[in-house]
Amino acid sequence: MTERKYLIGVDIGGTNLRVALADMKGEILARTSSTTVGVRDAQLIVAKIRQCADRLLQDAGIPQEAVAAIGAGAPGVTNAETGVVIATSYLLGWRDVPLKAMLEEALSVSAAVDNDVNLAALGESFFGAAAGVPNFVFLAVGTGLGAGIVLQNQLFQGAAWTAGEVGYMLVPGVSQEPVELGEPGALENVIGGEGLRLQWLSLWNPRETKLPENLTATQIFDGAVAGDPLANSVLDRTAHALACAIFNMTLVLNTPLFVLGGSVGLHPALRDRTQKVVDGHARLLRPEIVLSSLGSDAQLMGAIRLAHLITQR
Amino acid sequence: MTERKYLIGVDIGGTNLRVALADMKGEILARTSSTTVGVRDAQLIVAKIRQCADRLLQDAGIPQEAVAAIGAGAPGVTNAETGVVIATSYLLGWRDVPLKAMLEEALSVSAAVDNDVNLAALGESFFGAAAGVPNFVFLAVGTGLGAGIVLQNQLFQGAAWTAGEVGYMLVPGVSQEPVELGEPGALENVIGGEGLRLQWLSLWNPRETKLPENLTATQIFDGAVAGDPLANSVLDRTAHALACAIFNMTLVLNTPLFVLGGSVGLHPALRDRTQKVVDGHARLLRPEIVLSSLGSDAQLMGAIRLAHLITQR
Repeated sequence: MTERKYLIGVDIGGTNLRVALADMKGEILARTSSTTVGVRDAQLIVAKIRQCADRLLQDAGIPQEAVAAIGAGAPGVTNAETGVVIATSYLLGWRDVPLKAMLEEALSVSAAVDNDVNLAALGESFFGAAAGVPNFVFLAVGTGLGAGIVLQNQLFQGAAWTAGEVGYMLVPGVSQEPVELGEPGALENVIGGEGLRLQWLSLWNPRETKLPENLTATQIFDGAVAGDPLANSVLDRTAHALACAIFNMTLVLNTPLFVLGGSVGLHPALRDRTQKVVDGHARLLRPEIVLSSLGSDAQLMGAIRLAHLITQR
Repeated sequence: MTERKYLIGVDIGGTNLRVALADMKGEILARTSSTTVGVRDAQLIVAKIRQCADRLLQDAGIPQEAVAAIGAGAPGVTNAETGVVIATSYLLGWRDVPLKAMLEEALSVSAAVDNDVNLAALGESFFGAAAGVPNFVFLAVGTGLGAGIVLQNQLFQGAAWTAGEVGYMLVPGVSQEPVELGEPGALENVIGGEGLRLQWLSLWNPRETKLPENLTATQIFDGAVAGDPLANSVLDRTAHALACAIFNMTLVLNTPLFVLGGSVGLHPALRDRTQKVVDGHARLLRPEIVLSSLGSDAQLMGAIRLAHLITQR
């Protein structure tokens, strides 16, 4: 009988699908990716995952029967117990997709699934910036904003599987207009990449900045570091809102560490200014803010870790 | 040998000490109280607890040896594992008081201690408004504001024993000036009884209200219900800030139920308006807000429950 000693990790994104083959220590042996643009059907995505996995195994000369488990992250609210993706954003548009069961059928191997931000937290917890820290929060600041919460070395997903949906948090300086389900949240509009792009567009004025009118969040932050006054005021507002969210979460959860990830969250200037604002408020507890050490691999590493966890049950 | 079949519950407050004798079902058989005004020394408080317990046992004709355990709530940050009260407010002024050990020595019986708001949550969880609800938050709105968090039927105290110190939460409409340790928090100043009294004093103007200049929080809320415009605007502001805090906590914790307790929190008008504001924001999750059913006995009932829990270890 073939020994089951390999893991497959999958990161399903709104535009990209990434699949990795790893050993039981979580070391990635090979990886591949595929586009999900225009592909919304869950059956098609699972077929793509199957293709990617087959290719990785074939190239490595590993038989399918040597795979112990597959872990996958989905960009939406996920019931990690049943393995059903309850809802994703419009990019995939999934509702109640039994992803775990579909993966198990397609790949004939045990599968586990969770929300992608939770998996990024799991990745940082085991392989990254939070290794050895039992209680922390991973904050994914990309287009939007989400939190993966780890308490006593375990993912805390909440009774409704939406713990950490902090993009809707109400802090000083955000709009208090109620938002519809699926729309970006109040805090997300200030901190998230898309919100930052729109803020810059609306604030842009050639008398106040020498930077161009169309900028990404990280370009705005780069401009702030280079001394641009308008970019600095945008970065300050972002850092202030993020600091309030982190401070509020510390009050509720007592987590001493916050790991920033995502394309916007990885900018060092955002971390530095946010830490400064948090330090101004913190008294009993002073949460430390660090950058993700896994970067864009956090979700994938978490998926591999999730696969490993089910082999230990 | 005498069967150990009675419990003692203790609620240590900044001005009052309450002690109850209960059977193993948590039914209170007798209770007594004593003042703590001017008594800051922990040894003196423990001696008072001993006196109260002796009197209750004597009056009921129960020998000391029949007591199975004692549970006590302290008004401050408490390490429930070691039983040390780390810090209380200025009323008692305790720092690192080994309350569990002191009670065990004075009463020759197993003791357990926790923060009083956590014990109120435990009381509501087992005997009160949250019975049968595995995940909820108890909000004590009295002079100040604090939260007791129950996750999966267990108290969640946080790694630093200060989870739920939400009086410092930063929500829209509160001051963003950093506060010193020991000072009331930003949210507390808007929602807490003392903050409300001061707000009323500063807003009071005979052209805008027919109510007197010196009012308690509940008197202001009564005035709002009776139609006073200034009292209504104060109640609205309070409900709005409380709703933001509840909404933010739901995002982080996914708790579907919030139980309001404390002298200010028990006012039905505050509950009703807060629920309305929360409903306006809630989308995926709609937390329900209910009044404590144990009222001012919540802490004491939690202390009895805590005593019961250690007999089951």
